[in-house]
Amino acid sequence: MCGVFGIANHPEAANLTYLGLHALQHRGQESAGVVTSEGGTLHAVRKMGLVADVFSKEQLASLRGSVGIGHVRYSTAGGSLPKNVQPLTAEYRHGAVALAHNGNLVNAELLRTKLEAEGAIFSSNSDTEVILQLMARCNETTLAGRLAWALERVQGAYSLVMTSEDRLLVARDPHGFRPLILGRMRTSPHAYVVASETCAFDLIEAERIRDIEPGEVLTIDGAQLVSQHLPPAPPRFCVFEHVYFARPDSRLNDEGVYDLRVRMGAKLAQESPVEADMVIPVPDSGVVAALGYARESGIPFELGLIRNHYVGRTFIEPKDSIRNFGVKLKLNPVPGLLKGKRVIVVDDSIVRGTTSRKIVKMIRDAGAREVHVRISSPPVKSPCFYGIDTPTRAELIAHSHSPAEIARYITADSAAYLSSKGLAEAVREGPERRFCDACFTGDYPIPFDPPTHRRQLRLVEF
Amino acid sequence: MCGVFGIANHPEAANLTYLGLHALQHRGQESAGVVTSEGGTLHAVRKMGLVADVFSKEQLASLRGSVGIGHVRYSTAGGSLPKNVQPLTAEYRHGAVALAHNGNLVNAELLRTKLEAEGAIFSSNSDTEVILQLMARCNETTLAGRLAWALERVQGAYSLVMTSEDRLLVARDPHGFRPLILGRMRTSPHAYVVASETCAFDLIEAERIRDIEPGEVLTIDGAQLVSQHLPPAPPRFCVFEHVYFARPDSRLNDEGVYDLRVRMGAKLAQESPVEADMVIPVPDSGVVAALGYARESGIPFELGLIRNHYVGRTFIEPKDSIRNFGVKLKLNPVPGLLKGKRVIVVDDSIVRGTTSRKIVKMIRDAGAREVHVRISSPPVKSPCFYGIDTPTRAELIAHSHSPAEIARYITADSAAYLSSKGLAEAVREGPERRFCDACFTGDYPIPFDPPTHRRQLRLVEF
Amino acid sequence: MCGVFGIANHPEAANLTYLGLHALQHRGQESAGVVTSEGGTLHAVRKMGLVADVFSKEQLASLRGSVGIGHVRYSTAGGSLPKNVQPLTAEYRHGAVALAHNGNLVNAELLRTKLEAEGAIFSSNSDTEVILQLMARCNETTLAGRLAWALERVQGAYSLVMTSEDRLLVARDPHGFRPLILGRMRTSPHAYVVASETCAFDLIEAERIRDIEPGEVLTIDGAQLVSQHLPPAPPRFCVFEHVYFARPDSRLNDEGVYDLRVRMGAKLAQESPVEADMVIPVPDSGVVAALGYARESGIPFELGLIRNHYVGRTFIEPKDSIRNFGVKLKLNPVPGLLKGKRVIVVDDSIVRGTTSRKIVKMIRDAGAREVHVRISSPPVKSPCFYGIDTPTRAELIAHSHSPAEIARYITADSAAYLSSKGLAEAVREGPERRFCDACFTGDYPIPFDPPTHRRQLRLVEF
Amino acid sequence: MCGVFGIANHPEAANLTYLGLHALQHRGQESAGVVTSEGGTLHAVRKMGLVADVFSKEQLASLRGSVGIGHVRYSTAGGSLPKNVQPLTAEYRHGAVALAHNGNLVNAELLRTKLEAEGAIFSSNSDTEVILQLMARCNETTLAGRLAWALERVQGAYSLVMTSEDRLLVARDPHGFRPLILGRMRTSPHAYVVASETCAFDLIEAERIRDIEPGEVLTIDGAQLVSQHLPPAPPRFCVFEHVYFARPDSRLNDEGVYDLRVRMGAKLAQESPVEADMVIPVPDSGVVAALGYARESGIPFELGLIRNHYVGRTFIEPKDSIRNFGVKLKLNPVPGLLKGKRVIVVDDSIVRGTTSRKIVKMIRDAGAREVHVRISSPPVKSPCFYGIDTPTRAELIAHSHSPAEIARYITADSAAYLSSKGLAEAVREGPERRFCDACFTGDYPIPFDPPTHRRQLRLVEF
Repeated sequence: MCGVFGIANHPEAANLTYLGLHALQHRGQESAGVVTSEGGTLHAVRKMGLVADVFSKEQLASLRGSVGIGHVRYSTAGGSLPKNVQPLTAEYRHGAVALAHNGNLVNAELLRTKLEAEGAIFSSNSDTEVILQLMARCNETTLAGRLAWALERVQGAYSLVMTSEDRLLVARDPHGFRPLILGRMRTSPHAYVVASETCAFDLIEAERIRDIEPGEVLTIDGAQLVSQHLPPAPPRFCVFEHVYFARPDSRLNDEGVYDLRVRMGAKLAQESPVEADMVIPVPDSGVVAALGYARESGIPFELGLIRNHYVGRTFIEPKDSIRNFGVKLKLNPVPGLLKGKRVIVVDDSIVRGTTSRKIVKMIRDAGAREVHVRISSPPVKSPCFYGIDTPTRAELIAHSHSPAEIARYITADSAAYLSSKGLAEAVREGPERRFCDACFTGDYPIPFDPPTHRRQLRLVEF
Repeated sequence: MCGVFGIANHPEAANLTYLGLHALQHRGQESAGVVTSEGGTLHAVRKMGLVADVFSKEQLASLRGSVGIGHVRYSTAGGSLPKNVQPLTAEYRHGAVALAHNGNLVNAELLRTKLEAEGAIFSSNSDTEVILQLMARCNETTLAGRLAWALERVQGAYSLVMTSEDRLLVARDPHGFRPLILGRMRTSPHAYVVASETCAFDLIEAERIRDIEPGEVLTIDGAQLVSQHLPPAPPRFCVFEHVYFARPDSRLNDEGVYDLRVRMGAKLAQESPVEADMVIPVPDSGVVAALGYARESGIPFELGLIRNHYVGRTFIEPKDSIRNFGVKLKLNPVPGLLKGKRVIVVDDSIVRGTTSRKIVKMIRDAGAREVHVRISSPPVKSPCFYGIDTPTRAELIAHSHSPAEIARYITADSAAYLSSKGLAEAVREGPERRFCDACFTGDYPIPFDPPTHRRQLRLVEF
Repeated sequence: MCGVFGIANHPEAANLTYLGLHALQHRGQESAGVVTSEGGTLHAVRKMGLVADVFSKEQLASLRGSVGIGHVRYSTAGGSLPKNVQPLTAEYRHGAVALAHNGNLVNAELLRTKLEAEGAIFSSNSDTEVILQLMARCNETTLAGRLAWALERVQGAYSLVMTSEDRLLVARDPHGFRPLILGRMRTSPHAYVVASETCAFDLIEAERIRDIEPGEVLTIDGAQLVSQHLPPAPPRFCVFEHVYFARPDSRLNDEGVYDLRVRMGAKLAQESPVEADMVIPVPDSGVVAALGYARESGIPFELGLIRNHYVGRTFIEPKDSIRNFGVKLKLNPVPGLLKGKRVIVVDDSIVRGTTSRKIVKMIRDAGAREVHVRISSPPVKSPCFYGIDTPTRAELIAHSHSPAEIARYITADSAAYLSSKGLAEAVREGPERRFCDACFTGDYPIPFDPPTHRRQLRLVEF
Repeated sequence: MCGVFGIANHPEAANLTYLGLHALQHRGQESAGVVTSEGGTLHAVRKMGLVADVFSKEQLASLRGSVGIGHVRYSTAGGSLPKNVQPLTAEYRHGAVALAHNGNLVNAELLRTKLEAEGAIFSSNSDTEVILQLMARCNETTLAGRLAWALERVQGAYSLVMTSEDRLLVARDPHGFRPLILGRMRTSPHAYVVASETCAFDLIEAERIRDIEPGEVLTIDGAQLVSQHLPPAPPRFCVFEHVYFARPDSRLNDEGVYDLRVRMGAKLAQESPVEADMVIPVPDSGVVAALGYARESGIPFELGLIRNHYVGRTFIEPKDSIRNFGVKLKLNPVPGLLKGKRVIVVDDSIVRGTTSRKIVKMIRDAGAREVHVRISSPPVKSPCFYGIDTPTRAELIAHSHSPAEIARYITADSAAYLSSKGLAEAVREGPERRFCDACFTGDYPIPFDPPTHRRQLRLVEF
């Protein structure tokens, strides 16, 4: 997962990009970067670490220019290496260009092999660099033309922001897998912004105009907005953004995430009721759905697990060995509260099952009489190839186990998932399909053969 | 505010102290330190910063010894300087000694002036050092004797842990202002631990034995526990620990903090009801009381303000200029949810009123029709001199303004506080007074004249 | 100026490369880097700074493999940027490759423009990268074939070391501008080493075998050495290596540098005698020639200027503003010694004249009655395009001023240079020309039109 | 060894102190510090490392005030710990005070034990702190009075600078072991400076006024200089300053160090001649004496060993294990030059003999036919207790071995030392004894019983 941000026509482009990345920090904590455009020159600051640690005051001040793009990354393709920190930059015959990307390209390796055979030298392991390499080989005379030409040749998920020649370019893949929203500064109506989520607009006092359309390539040149469109494809917005990734105070596809999550919880209560004394969420991701469940079921809502916020987010930690210890470091049951009680625990998803197992065990150790696990989305059975860093199919517990078997493994008295139908209703999908739910169904909008593989590491920098 | 931790008789003293500090991080984010005792030698790591950043793996490994003490600090007396990072250490004629302190001594300046007149050189600005200087001048033959002798001469609030001569010493002032709890490792029953809150025990799998008694000086020497007592005084446990500071999953005075906060919210709903469409907390401190208010009033509970957890805690930031900006950085209303609604906002306290004003404004900007502020404790009218870093009386809005005036200032439709009686009932105070509530009442258990003042800075280290 | 080092077939390749760079530190203090080859994987550590600061013990330990190359850099082409730190690395279709280069390519910009027009993306501003880009486009089947193919297309000065596919490749341009010497470890005869100067061999206890021949491309594959040759050109070894750059304890072209510098000083004494009380060098570069001058003239040698070795080398500092101050920081006359004396000051060269002026002034301030400047090489009138970072022609004082005018500018009683003939005799040039002396004569072995220019900076990283 | 610097009445006190420390860097490379006085407030920057690395531009700018003191340290008493970095500072009843000290107190441990018994807490292991602790206990009403009172109670070697109450205080022990010189800024005649060596004056364009007298306590208060004197003692200036420590461009006791070293070399040539082809110094310490030897003997002077100046000074490295390797890292013979030659190697002293042995071996490996070692001072047989960090008697090779035995150990054909008489003549000692030569003779000016010992480390900070 990643978050992107862009701004044009604002004297404080770097500072606003920095703030925008703060609001998007939940989408990636591994690295952060900002590039600004000042005349023909790009200025860049990029580093491993959180936004608050990556940028010094002095560095921000040196990021001059009125166009800025930024990126927070949790690594998907490319691996956890300094050279993959985005925005990627390159110098090609038309000058310097910077690009930040949320998503994942499924034909990146094929294209890379082909480009290398023609003599290309890549400076990163990132799939994103393929777009730059294609642009460098393209004979289109305009920047937008080169970007569109390159995007017609890649397949997969991308919401991207680019700057070169003092312009801001924005594009979203034809399926529209990842969110990307256009806004403008309230106090400066010709200063346009784009971001992965609207919560970034709220912080900087920008207002939402509309979503960037699937397949749209938008050039912001001064106060002028020019749109082009890639060949169309059916819309497939990632439903997992609604289930887990997005912040609940964001609006995606003009829907409030908070509201949809309350609906998921309520549907879940309708589908999988159970007698109990309290509903508790796994914080923070399960909180809103748990509220919906509690309200629908009439069972009291309690914050039975307290989270220590000085340690990072579970799902997003790179190494498994840390994660197991992380449950203990992050969550602690409220003593006394759970003693002798029948407890419903609500979470957004189960991936490997190891974390859920530890949580259930923790709740039982705190004296709960019964523990019922309720998940506000269907079972995750298939890996995502469009930008979410899920493990392989074999590691996904729901790929090979039924809910009853999962309940047994995680030592719960019962375990139930929201049905696909329930999820569809919660997110208000109409008769026309709008969402990608490949992680639940294995129904991939973009087929690929052979499957995406990771390139062997051939160069290691210490 | 600060947090302290100590452990004796465990081969992994440093690692467990480090984990204990992780669990106590909410009590202080400015600096952290661990000192271990190995034979006559003390090993120390201390630095400005969060626990996760202060200690490297290598440094932890070099902290050998079976006794460890640790401290997380948010500066009160002494100022925000590297030389004040605790545990303080000193070498005196009986060897090396380390001391970590939660609380504030009210006669520290008087004692310091007197000691300096006799030739003492202080190496910090911290009030805590007075205890070490007194011990260095004492002729008692035992370590515990020297500590007790020094403590008989200081006045104020202290929960402290000390190590020297391979022993762990623990003490709590006669009023018992700050919490301090004794426990033991489940898997290693002769390994004793002490901590400011029980949540530190949960993380390391220790169990609570009992609170350290007010006025108790406890020496843990090998597997032996020896208690002495200072001259007694009436118990005055800080009620604000229950209202705000402690983690809700901690038990203090053998009471669950979560439960007491639910009760505060419920009492508040009884005392100050108002018709509304939803109850929302100011996260995180107001969440549990808001649950209690919502449940008692029957008005739906919603998480109307979303907190960005990648930025630190409001009340605990050192500089006002950062804090105002911090509200925007930390909290964002859920768009749509509040539109046209009558909203009750629950928080634990109002200090200067500037933050509350911004929050109310934010909620109104999100479309709320009415905003009613409800505070789960009485008005804070007087500064704390026992370890909480409150501003001077003049800056406390409730010192000079009525709730109605405060409501006007913060632009709320109404504002109400929990009454003193309501708070007393919520925390189950009986006919015998047990709590210090000087911040609400101005009734200080330890008088002082002239008031505590900060020594002018005479030495600045860059 | 730069220094390169390479080693093959030794289990401690990284450590020996690190030591070799220590011995070559005088050739470049801006950055340092080591890359090792372990099977198909390259391991790299590269950073701005001195060798002693760039590499930690842990990083050296992680540089596994039996082939190593290293580089110390004082920037010439490419600018003082982290991304230009060598060895450069790239991944192309045949795997990962690393390259370190001493010298300067005169057609790099032309080639870069051409390659970019064909779609190449460069990841550095360094002229060296052109070689990698050419190799990536070449269809030769062997590594050595690709390197030779690329080198046939570049023009200029290069002594280079490369590693890929677990081999060490070494090449020197057909004119042999820069030194490069082959040796072997005394204790491990199949472990071959190459270095810019023999002083690197002395430190690691290697012995010199022979110079790499001009135009030679040597592949070291296991214990096998295979040579190829580029189209031949007349030998043009940089005579300034003998005059200034090389360490006096090095042997270049099988000549001892110390001996040649003594000869330069002696020739200078013969050509430009003057009555005086003492000969003093400008330390360290003028010391050996001053010894020769003193010995030939019979005038006593004194160390009249003492150098503070805790500050870096004059000529090699990047910014003019620092250099002027640097004279004061670095050199101090011995008080008393110079008082009332007629002093001959010997230095290796005069570039802008500003430093010499300050030195002469300093000597006069110390009481010298007469100051005669003697330079152990001819006047530097033309910039070097083959790897030495000289200023433009307009800044070179000797380009537009006679020795008499220079004497006046630097406030010396007299100033004299070694003649071209004298220099030729000192370095034992026979009837056949062997040296490049373009900086003295403007007679450039490789013509170029238009002149090499620096590419505008289009991407700045903070 | 250490170096101290002080300045009063100059608006750029911090910058000039910083430059002064640069010039004194050869006296200590372990740590550096500057403290300035601005009204009653002291500002401090102190750190382990070289002057160039310790101070950032920002930190220097924050050192406000017109009085500055500085210190470079190579640890003697106190050990290599951050808390011992000087200037030491303390806050006592009269305000803040800072003190920097070159030398060593022989009764520091006795005084410390006594002070601790009275309740003193020391914040460092440094002997220097005893002076501060004594001052804190003194009832004198003036700052100079307190300093003099304290100094009357300590014994040993000290040249010290102190600042408090916006004054600069300067003192030298009654024997005058260590140098300390008074000067004034040429351009600002009321700005007084003091430094360990005059080379610090040269850099900042100050002129020498006179030496601080042995036993003098000088207060510089505004433009006023007030002297007091401690009880007198016979002068005992450390002759080893002339032999080794001081920079050759310094004047100590109004004698030029360079001149005295030339004389030592010449005397040595008279006393211990030998037929040879060349005289070579061990750089840098032996260079000037070797010049004197060569001139007197008529044997050619050659720089046969080249030093790599990017690695620090031999004698001054803290750990033996590094030092041995250091010889190889630092010195390299000029190849060819020594082949088949009879070589005289001149150095200033032999301590353990291990380094000399390696150097002789290196010269033989380079082909020398004979190697004769000549030392420009008498054999070092006894440790120094007055500020030079020599090893214990047992480790000093000359304590138990004759020159002939030493020659055999270091594998030289002959070894000879300058006689005590020769040294006395070289440094122009008259019939009245002026120098301390305890390291050569064991004749200690200040007796002590029991011998100075190092306090066990009781507190370790990582």
